[in-house]
Amino acid sequence: MRVYEVQKGTTSLEGLRMAQRPDPQPGWHQLLIRVRAVSLNYRDHMVTLGRYFGGAVSRDTIPLSDGAGEVVAAGPGVTRFKAGDRVAGTFFQVWKDGPRSSSPPALGVPLDGTLAEYIALDQDGVVAIPTHLSFEEAAALPCAGVTAWHALMAAGRPVRAGDTVLCLGTGGVSTLAMQLAHAAGARVIVTSSSDAKLERARKLGASDTINYTATPEWEKEVARVTGGRGVDCVIEIGGAGTLARSMQSLGFGGKVCLIGFLGGPTGDTSPFPLMMKAASLHGISVGSTHMFEDMNRAIEQNRIQPAIDRVYPFEQAPDAYRRLASGDFFGKLVIAV
Amino acid sequence: MRVYEVQKGTTSLEGLRMAQRPDPQPGWHQLLIRVRAVSLNYRDHMVTLGRYFGGAVSRDTIPLSDGAGEVVAAGPGVTRFKAGDRVAGTFFQVWKDGPRSSSPPALGVPLDGTLAEYIALDQDGVVAIPTHLSFEEAAALPCAGVTAWHALMAAGRPVRAGDTVLCLGTGGVSTLAMQLAHAAGARVIVTSSSDAKLERARKLGASDTINYTATPEWEKEVARVTGGRGVDCVIEIGGAGTLARSMQSLGFGGKVCLIGFLGGPTGDTSPFPLMMKAASLHGISVGSTHMFEDMNRAIEQNRIQPAIDRVYPFEQAPDAYRRLASGDFFGKLVIAV
Amino acid sequence: MRVYEVQKGTTSLEGLRMAQRPDPQPGWHQLLIRVRAVSLNYRDHMVTLGRYFGGAVSRDTIPLSDGAGEVVAAGPGVTRFKAGDRVAGTFFQVWKDGPRSSSPPALGVPLDGTLAEYIALDQDGVVAIPTHLSFEEAAALPCAGVTAWHALMAAGRPVRAGDTVLCLGTGGVSTLAMQLAHAAGARVIVTSSSDAKLERARKLGASDTINYTATPEWEKEVARVTGGRGVDCVIEIGGAGTLARSMQSLGFGGKVCLIGFLGGPTGDTSPFPLMMKAASLHGISVGSTHMFEDMNRAIEQNRIQPAIDRVYPFEQAPDAYRRLASGDFFGKLVIAV
Amino acid sequence: MRVYEVQKGTTSLEGLRMAQRPDPQPGWHQLLIRVRAVSLNYRDHMVTLGRYFGGAVSRDTIPLSDGAGEVVAAGPGVTRFKAGDRVAGTFFQVWKDGPRSSSPPALGVPLDGTLAEYIALDQDGVVAIPTHLSFEEAAALPCAGVTAWHALMAAGRPVRAGDTVLCLGTGGVSTLAMQLAHAAGARVIVTSSSDAKLERARKLGASDTINYTATPEWEKEVARVTGGRGVDCVIEIGGAGTLARSMQSLGFGGKVCLIGFLGGPTGDTSPFPLMMKAASLHGISVGSTHMFEDMNRAIEQNRIQPAIDRVYPFEQAPDAYRRLASGDFFGKLVIAV
Repeated sequence: MRVYEVQKGTTSLEGLRMAQRPDPQPGWHQLLIRVRAVSLNYRDHMVTLGRYFGGAVSRDTIPLSDGAGEVVAAGPGVTRFKAGDRVAGTFFQVWKDGPRSSSPPALGVPLDGTLAEYIALDQDGVVAIPTHLSFEEAAALPCAGVTAWHALMAAGRPVRAGDTVLCLGTGGVSTLAMQLAHAAGARVIVTSSSDAKLERARKLGASDTINYTATPEWEKEVARVTGGRGVDCVIEIGGAGTLARSMQSLGFGGKVCLIGFLGGPTGDTSPFPLMMKAASLHGISVGSTHMFEDMNRAIEQNRIQPAIDRVYPFEQAPDAYRRLASGDFFGKLVIAV
Repeated sequence: MRVYEVQKGTTSLEGLRMAQRPDPQPGWHQLLIRVRAVSLNYRDHMVTLGRYFGGAVSRDTIPLSDGAGEVVAAGPGVTRFKAGDRVAGTFFQVWKDGPRSSSPPALGVPLDGTLAEYIALDQDGVVAIPTHLSFEEAAALPCAGVTAWHALMAAGRPVRAGDTVLCLGTGGVSTLAMQLAHAAGARVIVTSSSDAKLERARKLGASDTINYTATPEWEKEVARVTGGRGVDCVIEIGGAGTLARSMQSLGFGGKVCLIGFLGGPTGDTSPFPLMMKAASLHGISVGSTHMFEDMNRAIEQNRIQPAIDRVYPFEQAPDAYRRLASGDFFGKLVIAV
Repeated sequence: MRVYEVQKGTTSLEGLRMAQRPDPQPGWHQLLIRVRAVSLNYRDHMVTLGRYFGGAVSRDTIPLSDGAGEVVAAGPGVTRFKAGDRVAGTFFQVWKDGPRSSSPPALGVPLDGTLAEYIALDQDGVVAIPTHLSFEEAAALPCAGVTAWHALMAAGRPVRAGDTVLCLGTGGVSTLAMQLAHAAGARVIVTSSSDAKLERARKLGASDTINYTATPEWEKEVARVTGGRGVDCVIEIGGAGTLARSMQSLGFGGKVCLIGFLGGPTGDTSPFPLMMKAASLHGISVGSTHMFEDMNRAIEQNRIQPAIDRVYPFEQAPDAYRRLASGDFFGKLVIAV
Repeated sequence: MRVYEVQKGTTSLEGLRMAQRPDPQPGWHQLLIRVRAVSLNYRDHMVTLGRYFGGAVSRDTIPLSDGAGEVVAAGPGVTRFKAGDRVAGTFFQVWKDGPRSSSPPALGVPLDGTLAEYIALDQDGVVAIPTHLSFEEAAALPCAGVTAWHALMAAGRPVRAGDTVLCLGTGGVSTLAMQLAHAAGARVIVTSSSDAKLERARKLGASDTINYTATPEWEKEVARVTGGRGVDCVIEIGGAGTLARSMQSLGFGGKVCLIGFLGGPTGDTSPFPLMMKAASLHGISVGSTHMFEDMNRAIEQNRIQPAIDRVYPFEQAPDAYRRLASGDFFGKLVIAV
C-alpha cells in the first residue's frame, strides 16, 4: 500500500516521504480499515520538526493520529464491528474508559499512524462515526474533537446550558469546542487575531468575538461582555502568554482546560487567580474510546459538521503540512486518502 | 391588598375564597414584591382537596408557590435587589445552595404564597427573572422549572449533549424539562395519551413521541427508538404504575428522577432493573436559589419560552384550579395578578 | 486438573460434582493461574438451586466467581503480570474501568469459574492481591469486597470520614463494607438477628449494633442513635422487606446501595422516602478491575483482613455450600484448593 | 470588653495594641459569643505587616479569623443555637453551602475578628464544635481545619481510603490535613526541614517523611516511596518554588490543592506536568459552613485532636505573633481569652 513516512531523524518537512509498505493484516481482536480521510493536528507539525517530546522519530514512522475509513476485514475475536462499517480510530489506542491511568503510545508517534491506505487497529481503539458525516468530516474528530469534548464534558464539572465557554483561537480543538458548547446550550466567546476568522466562528455558534490584536488585554473584554461574571470554562490551547489571561477570565468555580503544546513545556504563570476564584486548572490530553462515543452521539443528535479548512489529495499531503505550519487556517486540515 | 385564601379545613375548591389582607411590609433582609403573575402546580390542587401531606390547612392560607413580579421596596439589609427589579420567589425560601439538608417550609403551604397582590420575601429567596420573559412566562418557573433543572442537571450525572431524556406527560415539569434538555443538546422522548399534545411537544424540542394509550408497553417503544440503548434520564412524574416502566426504559448508568405527588406515597415497584443497568433513582423536590439562577442563565441563553396553557385573570383563579384538576392542559396554567 | 462442576440442569446441591478437566492453556493476553483459595457468594447457592437468572445451568459449569492464586504462566501479549505474582480474578472479566456499559458474562456462570486447580484469565481481568493477605483472605475480595467498595466509594457521593454507614447483616459484603467504611473514618451501624454476630461486627469497626429480631422497627433505632440525622449510606443486601426501612433510615442526601439477590427480582417498595430526603437508590453489581485495584490499596494501607467464617478443604466443598445455604455464618466461606 | 486592635496603617507587630471596646450586642439572627480561645494563621502575620491584599488595614481592626467560645445570648430570629452552646465562627461569615460564588469579607480583616472577649456573629456563620475538644483545640479549626477538609474532600475527587496525600510542611493546615487524611484511611507523606517535626508528624498519622533540606529534589523521593505511582493529592501551602515539585509528585488523575499566601501572588510555574498526568490544580480558600460541619463530624468520629504548638495567655498575644513570624512551630498557635 501507499503510505507517507516521517523518516528516522527528521527535523523538517523534507523528511516526509511517500513510500510503499505491505498491506497490514488484522491480528487478534483487530480490524483492517481502508483509510478514506485523515486530518492534521499541531502535534503532527512538531513531529516533522523533530520537536515532539523525545525529539526526532527514531524509525521511519507513518504519521498522523486521525483518520476515518471503512472496515474491510475483521481479525479473530472481533465482536464490535464488521466489514463495511464506517469507523475512526482513537488517538490513544488502549485508553478505553475511566480516567487515564497511564501514558499509552499514540497513533502517529510512536505508533504508525493513519497517513496510509490501510491500517489495522484493535477493535477497542475504534469507534463508529456519525452517520451524517463524510469521511473527511469524521477524520476531524479523533484528536481535536475528543480533546474538546473531554475538556468541556469530562474534566471537572461538565459544561451545562447557560454556562459561558471561552475558546482561544480558531484551530481544530477550538472550532469543535465552539460547536459542542453551542450545541450544549452554552454561550461561546472566541478570540482570534483575524476578524475574518471571528466572523466564521459566529457561524459555528460563537455569540461574542474578541480580536486579541485589537484588544490585547482580552481578559478585560471577557469580563465586560459577561457583566463581570467571568466564564465557566476556558479552552486554553497553550499559546505562550495566554494562560495568565485565561485564569483571569474565569468566574467563580470556573475551569481552565489546558490543551496542546503550542507553548511547549514552558509558559510559566502564577496560579494565584485560581485561589481568588475558587477555580481549577485541568491538564487535558485527548480522551478515551468511551468519550469519543459520547461525543459522537452529541454530534449526531445536533447535526454538527466539523469545520474543514481545506481537503488535500493524498499526493499533496506536504501542502497540508505547510498550511498547518503557517497557522493560517480555520478549523481542520484534511487529506483524502 | 386582595388575596385568595384557602380556608382552614378546606377539602374542596369551595374553600378557595378571595379576601383582603393588609399590605405586607418588608422586614429585615426582605423585599416587597408587587406580584404580576402566578402559576399553578399539581400540589396546589392537592392543597384545596385537603390532601397535601398533613391534610387540610390549619389556618387560612394564601396559596401557590410560584409567582413573578416587580420589587417595589427593599427592607433594611437588602443588597441583592432594588425597586424596579423583575424577580421571582423560590419555592423553598431558605434553601440557598448546596444539597438540601432539611425540609424547609414552602410558599403556598405552610407559608403564605403568591396568589396575592403583594408578597414580602427574604432576598435570598428571590431571583432575577430572564429578561426576555414576560411575568406570565416567568411565573411558570419557580416550581416546575427548577424541578426540571434539578433533575436534569444537578441530580447524579448532569445530562449532556447527545444523551436521551424521557419525559412522562406534558405538564409543567415535563414541558420545561423537554425545553431544557433540548437546549442542552439532548434527544427528547415524550409520552402522552393525546396525539395533539404530542404534536405540541415536538414544537418544544421532542424528537420522539409515544402515545401511551396506543402503546401501553411504552418502555418497549423506548427501547426500539433508542436502538436498544435505553435512555439516560427519565423525568418521572410519579403517576401510578409508571415507575416500573421508567426503570425498564433506562440504559446503562441511567437515572430516574422521581418527581411530584401524582401517585402520592403509594406506587410500589421493584427496583431490580436498577441493578441490571447500574442505574439510579433520585428523589427530587424542586431546588435551591442557586439552581434557579443557573437555570435562568440557560433559559436566557437559549431563549426558552415556557409553554403556557392559558392565562386567567385574577378574578377567575378558581377556573384555573378547575382546569388543573381536569388534567386537560399542556404546560402551565397562569393567573395574572 | 481437578475441578468441581455444577452439572447441566442442576437444581440442588446434588448437582455439584468433582470432575477432571484438561489443564487450561493461557491464550493471547491470558495468564494461567494456580488457584489456591476460592470463596462462596450467595449467588453460588442460587446457581446450585437452578434459580440464578435464566435458571439451571445449560452445560456442566465450573462454579464460583472468586479466587486467588499464583501466576504460573503468561500467554502471548501479557504485560501486566509474570509467573509467581499473587493475583485474583475479577468477577466481570471484561469490565476494566469507567461506568458499566454492558452486562458482561461473569465467572462461575455462564463462564467457567474458580473452583478448579487452574484457571486461565485475560490479564485485564486479573489484579495483584494485597501483600499482607493470605490466599484465603484474598479469595474473599473479588465479589463481596469489590461490591462493598463500589457501593461505598464509587456509587453517588463517596463515603467520607464522619459519614454514617448502615450495613444490613453480617455476610461477606456487609463485613467488608464495615471494615472499609471504618477504615475510611466513617461511623458504622450494623443489623443482625444474632447478638453473637453483632459482637463480632464490633471487632470489625461497627460502633452501633441493632438486633433486628429484638428491634423489628430498626429504622427507628437508626434514627435514635444518629440523633435523628439518619445515615449517609445503606448497604442494602436485598432481603425481602428491608428496602422500605433502609430508605427510612436515610438522612438528607443519603444513598441506598442495592446489592445482591436475596429477595430476587421481587421486593416492591415505594420510593417515596427518597423524595423526602433528597436521597438516591443505586443498583450495584460488583465492579470494575480499576475499582478492585483501588480497593486493594485501601485494604493494604489499612491492614484490613477480611473476616473468614471457615476454610474448607477442596474435598469438602459441598460442606461450604451447605453452610452458605444455612445462613449461619459470619463473613466469608472459603475453600482451599 | 478587652480586645486587641491592629491599628490603622500598621506595617509591623508594633501596630498590635490591646484596647477597650463596648461589648457587642447580638442583632437580628446573631449570637453573642464569649470567646474562650483563638488561633493564628499566616494571614494574620501578613496583616500586621500591612501586606495582606490591599495593604495595611484602613481602620483599627480586631484581628484573627479563628476562635471558639460559648454562646451567651441569642438575638431575635436565632434558631440554631442557645446560650451555653460551644461554638466556633466561620472564616467567611456568609458562605453557607455549595461552591463559593463570591469573595465575601472575612473575620479578622476587613471584618473585626476574634481576638476579643466577645464577638457577635450571624447564626449561619457559626458551628457547634466537637464535644471531645477543648476550646483551645476547637480554635484551631476555622481556617486551617476547614481549608484542609475542603482540599481533601470537596475539591475535585474526594480523597478515599488507600489514596496517598502529600502534605508540605507542618503548619496548621498541613497537620490537620495529615490527621484528616489518616482518619480517612489514606497514606500520608510529609515534608519538612526539621527531623524533629517530621517525627511529630508521624504521631499524627504520617507514614512517610521527607526532610527537604537533606533531599531538595523531594519529588523524586515521593516517586520512590510510592513505587513510581505518585500521589493523589498535594496539600500545597504555596511556599516559593514548591509548586513545580508538587505537580511533578502527582500520579495520574491527581490533584494539587493550592492554599495560602506564603509565596504571595508570585510563584510562576509551568503547568505542563498536569497534562502529562491528566491532573488538576485547585485554588482553595477556606470553606463553607457546611464543610465545617462535615469536618467536625469526621473529627468527632475519629477523635482527632488538633496539634497545638503552644497556648499563650491573652496578655501575651504579641508573643504568639512572634512565634508565628519565626516559622518555628508545629501545628497551631493558640491564645486563651
